[in-house]
Amino acid sequence: MAELPLAPIARIIKNAGAARVSDDAKVELAKVLEEYGDEISKQAVALAKHAGRKTVKAEDIELAI
Amino acid sequence: MAELPLAPIARIIKNAGAARVSDDAKVELAKVLEEYGDEISKQAVALAKHAGRKTVKAEDIELAI
Repeated sequence: MAELPLAPIARIIKNAGAARVSDDAKVELAKVLEEYGDEISKQAVALAKHAGRKTVKAEDIELAI
Repeated sequence: MAELPLAPIARIIKNAGAARVSDDAKVELAKVLEEYGDEISKQAVALAKHAGRKTVKAEDIELAI
């Protein structure tokens, strides 16, 4: 966990129309996106293995979603 | 768009068990997470406004999910 940096997360919230963003809001969104990313990635790794590959490709991510 | 850097995205996929990750897989996951983050953020901005605040807080993010 704690892979995603907070500056780009803050920009995503600002781009969505926020005048100001609290630090805990950035941390919360980073946590949520990282958990979702982890869930997708685990599924994508399983799909790549299922296809006989060691490399996770975009098609695995797409299918995992 | 294109806010999330690819290095931490690659680490999320590696942490999920990937031996190797193609560049297009990183780009794809970054795109998906950013779109999801944007969706949550727009809802959170609306919730903050609804509560009479200009600052998006963690509670707005939580309620938006």
